[in-house]
Amino acid sequence: VRRRPGGRSARVRRAVLAATIEELAEVGYGAFGFDGVARRAGVHRTTLYRRWRSREDLLVDAIAEYAQVAVPIPDTGSVRDDLLRYATSIVRSVAQPTIRAVVAAYVAEADHNPELAEAVRRYWADRRRLARAMVDRAIERGELPASADADRVFDHVLGPIYLRLLVTREPLAEAELARIVDSALAAARTPSAPGTA
Amino acid sequence: VRRRPGGRSARVRRAVLAATIEELAEVGYGAFGFDGVARRAGVHRTTLYRRWRSREDLLVDAIAEYAQVAVPIPDTGSVRDDLLRYATSIVRSVAQPTIRAVVAAYVAEADHNPELAEAVRRYWADRRRLARAMVDRAIERGELPASADADRVFDHVLGPIYLRLLVTREPLAEAELARIVDSALAAARTPSAPGTA
Repeated sequence: VRRRPGGRSARVRRAVLAATIEELAEVGYGAFGFDGVARRAGVHRTTLYRRWRSREDLLVDAIAEYAQVAVPIPDTGSVRDDLLRYATSIVRSVAQPTIRAVVAAYVAEADHNPELAEAVRRYWADRRRLARAMVDRAIERGELPASADADRVFDHVLGPIYLRLLVTREPLAEAELARIVDSALAAARTPSAPGTA
Repeated sequence: VRRRPGGRSARVRRAVLAATIEELAEVGYGAFGFDGVARRAGVHRTTLYRRWRSREDLLVDAIAEYAQVAVPIPDTGSVRDDLLRYATSIVRSVAQPTIRAVVAAYVAEADHNPELAEAVRRYWADRRRLARAMVDRAIERGELPASADADRVFDHVLGPIYLRLLVTREPLAEAELARIVDSALAAARTPSAPGTA
């Protein structure tokens, strides 16, 4: 069966993925499973078993779907503006109580759940790959040197944001994001000391 | 009663704080409390009630005591070496299963527990204040410009470490810490674009 995008199948998928985030945020990882998600989405649980191998797969699909919509990769023509928009949408996402709860749940759970840990790693490898486009385009435009390391930019934009929102719980005004982005860009323009890369 | 440092009172305190980390890592935040910690430390629970107002106070004292020993503020005469040692001891601490469990627990719990959230903020404000010495000394030695912002250095050293160890779960070799430190130093040497600080 060929599935039309936007057809019933796509609608069911979106409903299930949205229900997954809500269900996990509400019941916590221990009680999170196909039955609760199916009930919340108003679908039969066999619908879930047909499409997802495990609750870990389902969760990572749900986070990826959320991120694709809420944290798109901007293409403004300026790497600084791209990174600022990107950082702003990350901060707004992590400010959502359901998203905070989901991140907190997988941070707490993944140490005891190798399948979840692996699914989380796959998710982030994909987000990193997508974000690389912002740095690649900046290099093409001559805004950043060819040596600029997209992974380094990623670490220095997302790192301070997650540190402050989740770990240290210090306020992070959107105005401060410009400083974080400028720091990441300064790092991307500066080679490491010799012999230390 | 004047208490000698290193006397019985100090030994009891250290035993209780070590038991606090172990107890929380083992039972999780829900079941964590004075009774379990007292039992594990082999002291009467009134000993705990006399010294700590709440389990949140106790937890933050325990983390602070751990950090003071495991993540000291180095003073090597070089800001790069100081930050590298500091970063290395953070990575080694967060690699400890008990410490990971404690951080994961407070990340997951603090959204629902304002007293814990406030205690966590106090803890990190203190860690930030202590770490400032590394940047202050670098400015005095002329290694960093007077405009260097210690909070920014802190965010860009700790941010990528916590991001990768807790959130994205990507491997972080100790050799990569030099790049993280160099990025933080590049940021400290580069002013923000005009009008954006």
